[in-house]
Amino acid sequence: MKVSVIAIGDELLIGQVIDTNSSDIAKRIAPYGWELEQVQVVHDQEDDILESIDRALGRSQIVITTGGLGPTKDDITKGAMLKYFGGELVYNDQVRENIEEIFARRGVKVNNLTADQALVPTSCTVIQNVLGTAPIMWFEKDGKVLVAMPGVPFETRGMLDREVVPRLVRKFAQDQHVAHNNFMCWDITESDLAIRLESFEQSLPAELHLAYLPQPGLIRLRLDGHSTDRNRLETVMKEYSDKLVEIVGENMIYAGDANAAEILLHYLKLTGLSVGSAESCTGGAIASAITKIAGASDHFMGTVVSYSNQVKMNLLGVKEEDLERYGAVSESVVRQMAEGAAKALGVDCTMATSGIAGPGGGTPEKPVGTVWMAIHTPDGTFSRCHHFSGDRHRVIERATNTALLSLANQLRKTL
Amino acid sequence: MKVSVIAIGDELLIGQVIDTNSSDIAKRIAPYGWELEQVQVVHDQEDDILESIDRALGRSQIVITTGGLGPTKDDITKGAMLKYFGGELVYNDQVRENIEEIFARRGVKVNNLTADQALVPTSCTVIQNVLGTAPIMWFEKDGKVLVAMPGVPFETRGMLDREVVPRLVRKFAQDQHVAHNNFMCWDITESDLAIRLESFEQSLPAELHLAYLPQPGLIRLRLDGHSTDRNRLETVMKEYSDKLVEIVGENMIYAGDANAAEILLHYLKLTGLSVGSAESCTGGAIASAITKIAGASDHFMGTVVSYSNQVKMNLLGVKEEDLERYGAVSESVVRQMAEGAAKALGVDCTMATSGIAGPGGGTPEKPVGTVWMAIHTPDGTFSRCHHFSGDRHRVIERATNTALLSLANQLRKTL
Repeated sequence: MKVSVIAIGDELLIGQVIDTNSSDIAKRIAPYGWELEQVQVVHDQEDDILESIDRALGRSQIVITTGGLGPTKDDITKGAMLKYFGGELVYNDQVRENIEEIFARRGVKVNNLTADQALVPTSCTVIQNVLGTAPIMWFEKDGKVLVAMPGVPFETRGMLDREVVPRLVRKFAQDQHVAHNNFMCWDITESDLAIRLESFEQSLPAELHLAYLPQPGLIRLRLDGHSTDRNRLETVMKEYSDKLVEIVGENMIYAGDANAAEILLHYLKLTGLSVGSAESCTGGAIASAITKIAGASDHFMGTVVSYSNQVKMNLLGVKEEDLERYGAVSESVVRQMAEGAAKALGVDCTMATSGIAGPGGGTPEKPVGTVWMAIHTPDGTFSRCHHFSGDRHRVIERATNTALLSLANQLRKTL
Repeated sequence: MKVSVIAIGDELLIGQVIDTNSSDIAKRIAPYGWELEQVQVVHDQEDDILESIDRALGRSQIVITTGGLGPTKDDITKGAMLKYFGGELVYNDQVRENIEEIFARRGVKVNNLTADQALVPTSCTVIQNVLGTAPIMWFEKDGKVLVAMPGVPFETRGMLDREVVPRLVRKFAQDQHVAHNNFMCWDITESDLAIRLESFEQSLPAELHLAYLPQPGLIRLRLDGHSTDRNRLETVMKEYSDKLVEIVGENMIYAGDANAAEILLHYLKLTGLSVGSAESCTGGAIASAITKIAGASDHFMGTVVSYSNQVKMNLLGVKEEDLERYGAVSESVVRQMAEGAAKALGVDCTMATSGIAGPGGGTPEKPVGTVWMAIHTPDGTFSRCHHFSGDRHRVIERATNTALLSLANQLRKTL
């Protein structure tokens, strides 16, 4: 099945907003073996929209448009659809009720412009958008489908999951069963992993496909399967997932889709331990990654970001003589940071980082990218020196993920 | 001048990579009054690439393609260009030298696949890509230009600035002078700012254009100008920039383009003061935002992330009775956090946050999004309760930027 996306909106073409909806759509259709064939990003201009629809429907059975459904006069997608698919505009009471409910929740009065969002073409099936005021419109022509969705990413994502993808599947893939398993791998490069999995990949049956999705310090392997034979799909998914787990071995840190902080929280939950951090070069990025996750407070107690030596000494108890003798970026100091933080924060486990994120501060002995890391658990303190490449952002990001996964790995060993 | 972009690459259509190059291109052509007319995202497939070139050259004088120039067999952009523009592949010694130099720096040997990147069509002018191994190719046809650039965002951005945009300007806008000024505004909504600037915008001469570029808690106004008359451009830019500054008044926190942390560092530099933070709901995001900036260590000393009450008491000296009486999310506690952090970290200024980021933890009196904030400077401690909307990420992001800008604003008042 071929799918095309048309992203509509001037803001996408002046560099103000980046189109993330296409990627969200691509991820959601992949499990069915459907392919996003092309994306067109066009202005809020009728001619451009009509031409892009013509082109997309010429190539794909499914077309999804995003954007241009707002209440202001620059949003003209609805008018373009009316022109393309015919019909006339009529008030839809359900849409009107939905808009009033959303505005009531926000404590704002519905103005005329917003009320007009309840006008919909008779040529479409309306899908109620419970996450926003713009209704979703489903058009059909010659057995093909065009779905006009809003441009706000969280509305698009939410309504894809709740309504649009399930309806498309019912129409186009009723007999198709899908499954996918994720495996998070670390401490191995993508190319080494690919070499290790080469013959596994070649042995995959036609129903299965393996994708590599690398992030800094973490690689997600996704095994996708689709088949009309449900039992067969379940059997081969299980068989090849088991094989994959065996081949990847110790380098698989988590079965499922999760980021580094979520993986750490998983192992903290299993062990019932509390956590904190002592951060120099990561500058609070470890704490920030953990606290972005709802429920982090069950295990995360706090962090000391110790950029200055004074803070390292006063709050973490690092010895002044060691700072002078070995420097702040050293095994001795980072171990004292990890142990000092466990005491100061009253936690079972800590991660400590001290390194040179750059661009300045590097020396021949300790070039930019050098990061000393210590992991403290009830079993002891483990330290290691890493050398990360890339710019300041990248070094911080990789050090952050590596710290989170190093502690997760230590906890896994104790289970 | 109309510009089209063709983003080439399977990874863009399976949801693995988001196309940010188009946005980078749009931002860089806007100052010349050039418009990005359309973006096409296509697979690494010759037919698709050829069709998209035909379409783009039919509409635009300038076409920029990104991606598909790597050394592996799935990258076929060069072959497609050869087919479209004719000519034959020849070795380019300068490209070869560039590749060898880059590999030598990385300490890696050049293999055959990579060496073949030095093969370029005779129909193009080669632009040396000093940031990567894939050469940039400049084709001309019927007075129009197609530039084939690499897909790696930092190479694309860098080479746009160094070579591609200057060359396009020399060809298409030799007599055109451009200028732009940025103004960072805060503590006002975008619509209130637009209302205040309505008659100013209407009074703008044809050479000038005003753009609104909102971020969470911060709005960037960009005044763009272009003209063939350099003196006239300088005069009107100065005149209308001055007017804008006067109208925006106190709500303009910084003249130039900068994020919230950069703005704070600017005022710290001017005042020579040091800074730290005490973070509960922002969970380290304030520290992380500051330390992402190179040179932060001149002013930033450290942070205490105090998720648990124990850490608030032990490291920041918050009184247990006040935590019990008022709760952690209260004016009393957040003021003690700010003052306690100044003492514990040995810094002149601090920001403290305590709030409910959600999704859980809200009550009727303190719903999700409630954030108490305190700013401590040598002039005293200032506190305020904010109510932010949106999900957990958004609440954290807005609280972070608001804290950074609130301190920047306090420091500005002392100058």
